[in-house]
Amino acid sequence: MSKDNYVEQITNIDDDFAKWYTDIVIKAKLADYTETKGCISIRPYGFEIWENIKNYADKKFKEIGIKNAYFPLLIPENLLQKEKDHIEGFSPEVAWVNEIGDTKLDERLCIRPTSETIICSMYSKWLSSYRDLPFLYNQWCNVLRWEKETRPFLRSREFLWQEGHTIHETEKEAKEFTLKMLEIYSDILENLLAIPVVKGKKTESEKFAGAKETYTIETLMKDGKALQSATSHYFGQNFSKPFNIKFQNRDGKEEYAYQTSFGITTRLIGAIIMSHGDDRGLKLPPKIAPIQVNIIPIKTNDEKVMNVVNEIYKELNGSYRIEIDDRDNYSVGYKFNDSEMRGIPLRIEIGPRDLENNKCIIVRRDTLEKIEVELDNIKNEIDILLKDIQNNMYKMCEERMKEKTSVAKNIEEFESIINNNQGFIKVMWCGDNACEEKIKKLTSAKSRCIPFNEEKLYDKCFCCGKEAKHMVYFGRQY
Amino acid sequence: MSKDNYVEQITNIDDDFAKWYTDIVIKAKLADYTETKGCISIRPYGFEIWENIKNYADKKFKEIGIKNAYFPLLIPENLLQKEKDHIEGFSPEVAWVNEIGDTKLDERLCIRPTSETIICSMYSKWLSSYRDLPFLYNQWCNVLRWEKETRPFLRSREFLWQEGHTIHETEKEAKEFTLKMLEIYSDILENLLAIPVVKGKKTESEKFAGAKETYTIETLMKDGKALQSATSHYFGQNFSKPFNIKFQNRDGKEEYAYQTSFGITTRLIGAIIMSHGDDRGLKLPPKIAPIQVNIIPIKTNDEKVMNVVNEIYKELNGSYRIEIDDRDNYSVGYKFNDSEMRGIPLRIEIGPRDLENNKCIIVRRDTLEKIEVELDNIKNEIDILLKDIQNNMYKMCEERMKEKTSVAKNIEEFESIINNNQGFIKVMWCGDNACEEKIKKLTSAKSRCIPFNEEKLYDKCFCCGKEAKHMVYFGRQY
Repeated sequence: MSKDNYVEQITNIDDDFAKWYTDIVIKAKLADYTETKGCISIRPYGFEIWENIKNYADKKFKEIGIKNAYFPLLIPENLLQKEKDHIEGFSPEVAWVNEIGDTKLDERLCIRPTSETIICSMYSKWLSSYRDLPFLYNQWCNVLRWEKETRPFLRSREFLWQEGHTIHETEKEAKEFTLKMLEIYSDILENLLAIPVVKGKKTESEKFAGAKETYTIETLMKDGKALQSATSHYFGQNFSKPFNIKFQNRDGKEEYAYQTSFGITTRLIGAIIMSHGDDRGLKLPPKIAPIQVNIIPIKTNDEKVMNVVNEIYKELNGSYRIEIDDRDNYSVGYKFNDSEMRGIPLRIEIGPRDLENNKCIIVRRDTLEKIEVELDNIKNEIDILLKDIQNNMYKMCEERMKEKTSVAKNIEEFESIINNNQGFIKVMWCGDNACEEKIKKLTSAKSRCIPFNEEKLYDKCFCCGKEAKHMVYFGRQY
Repeated sequence: MSKDNYVEQITNIDDDFAKWYTDIVIKAKLADYTETKGCISIRPYGFEIWENIKNYADKKFKEIGIKNAYFPLLIPENLLQKEKDHIEGFSPEVAWVNEIGDTKLDERLCIRPTSETIICSMYSKWLSSYRDLPFLYNQWCNVLRWEKETRPFLRSREFLWQEGHTIHETEKEAKEFTLKMLEIYSDILENLLAIPVVKGKKTESEKFAGAKETYTIETLMKDGKALQSATSHYFGQNFSKPFNIKFQNRDGKEEYAYQTSFGITTRLIGAIIMSHGDDRGLKLPPKIAPIQVNIIPIKTNDEKVMNVVNEIYKELNGSYRIEIDDRDNYSVGYKFNDSEMRGIPLRIEIGPRDLENNKCIIVRRDTLEKIEVELDNIKNEIDILLKDIQNNMYKMCEERMKEKTSVAKNIEEFESIINNNQGFIKVMWCGDNACEEKIKKLTSAKSRCIPFNEEKLYDKCFCCGKEAKHMVYFGRQY
């Protein structure tokens, strides 16, 4: 019997969330562990989800004038050193190449943890006049960050991502672009992945190493932990000065460029699993599901049945991503479970009895509801159902996020919430990093962001009692 | 004045081919040198060409059932060691990671020069029954090979490629797949890149490290040197045995899988430059040109002209990749040169005088021919011209390849050809590696392939005079 010749039970989501997560990663064949410790292999089914995210994002990027390019994987040590905060932030988890074959290199080369430094070195070479600006470049690539604890997709030593790097003539234009990218990311999360978001600005202590301002898309997973799902950074001239990215401005004077960077990663696949999945396995939003409709014949050896199955396939194929599960070495029951494990939004069941009534059964993955459908109305029904599933999955997440978002007026309330309900905790905050530190030590929760839509919950800082400056989202994080 | 504020003269192709090549790479902004020695940065214009090749290839791959996946960049040393010939072939140019931050690793990790070993380790984990087969997986990724001498695109220490890795139930199926991939590659070269090819099998001494058979797509550059443009390998069980890739066959017995691998790289951009370019710069086949039509208003401050220009843009946009060059800080003459340097297949020139006659001028990049076209016939004309340019560029290459392909009956003829006309040299060969070695020492030319369509040119080996077994293409190579 083949290793994968049955659907194994997965851990219950309520018994052990972490185990439930990795069970789905492995059993839905999204990814697998490899002989390279801390690095995963993304299997075709998982990679197709990434391709669907990538194609959508890449189109959005190109619509606003971003162009793709490619920069070296390896960065000479002296380049990485140029921006102080940046190197401090990354050096502990950087992988170094210092041998080729059996000969030592004069200077170590690091594998990019991110590409600001090497890209800045090129921008300073390519830029000369304000007429050249803006540079709106992006690269889809792999990066390496040697995390101590790793988890598939969420925290992998190597991961795939997109890193956009732009330089602009003015501070205003660069800041606007930083926020424009955040809007594109929230569209990807909400409209493509059906995951509601909280948009906001990171506090000083949670900023990206080298950034002036970091904006973030925060999402809430089913276990009540927050996931930083996308970030967009405004660098000001923090990199353009050490890297000498200058241009002649409209007054004929030399000026340093204003810079941004922004990214999303394969971590989003983890967000999908932890936002939508259940005890039966993965649950994929139709828009990114590699297979949107799975046709399961109740009898593969019944010619009448197979004829109808093939007709339906012909009718739907091209309009939807569709698959017939006609494997004859698996039971129908297995195929149902398998279809649910893989999170396929809709499955069509057709057997001899259905044909007699000229009908078939369509089962929704999101609600598991069974719907009897006239054969000649299938396409129309599928179209309605897929749209409805996409919307319903978003709504279910949104309700859960509401339920799991609380207000804490003081440390005691904060602690009791974090230790019971978890989730997002909204507080008023004085703006002092000391309070963030204190809370982190007490509860291991961190500030997620200062939301764009701040509410005035109350007057004093929940932690120190001083005058409150901002409303902040806190939460434990991945 | 901006660095790029004029079109610099490039070296004449006949004066110094190598310099001409790198001039185009830099001045057409395809790529640039970086602070990481031997590694280039692919600029947006060059990368868009790669994206056009990639999208075409990826579609072809998916049509025959190949799925994309991703495997780790870093490979533990012990894995790389498992296939003897393989490690021998690659170890001298492999980059090793042995430090994270400031801590040494217990085992060195190499940056993939190719991924057979890590992929095999996963296949052995995933495969169990003949029912699971075939695995038809591919990854688009970066690889590293530490070449001593590097040239942009042709021989870069890091390059981008696609590597397909398949395993099959039978030798027959695997061999057929190896050849099927070669056909897809020759389609890419001939129909997409407008470059004629010679298809064939590598001799024993020129095989890929670890392969049983290597098939190749050989092309001929304008300087008469050959470029290996794509390869497809049949591994038999050379990897499946050491990596224990076994399955239960239809008789219930254990059997080792039959394997293939195949790839194309960013080197193809070099092939485009050296197959089509001329003293005015790059020359791009319409099918992969990032910009197919470039509209250049003779007067950007003439409202009537700009209105027509914008109308034409609206009419053509969507059907073609089109750009208006309305930069007001460049002369019209500069824009013509710039358009030619960037190899844009067609440019449309429109000035006030043209408007009076309700006409415009269209200039072909391939022939530099100027065609007067009625304004209301532009779209139709463009359509015809782009198709004709694609075909004509192929024909021009094909003729050149014919001219530069000769027959040598003995070593003397061989030497005189290689030292004058260069190009492909067809010979009859005994099959003995000693003759290949002798020729390599004498002339630095290598066997390119035993073509699928062998001719019987004469009876005896051109080198040793023994009975000839095969017709072989020889040539100096990149």
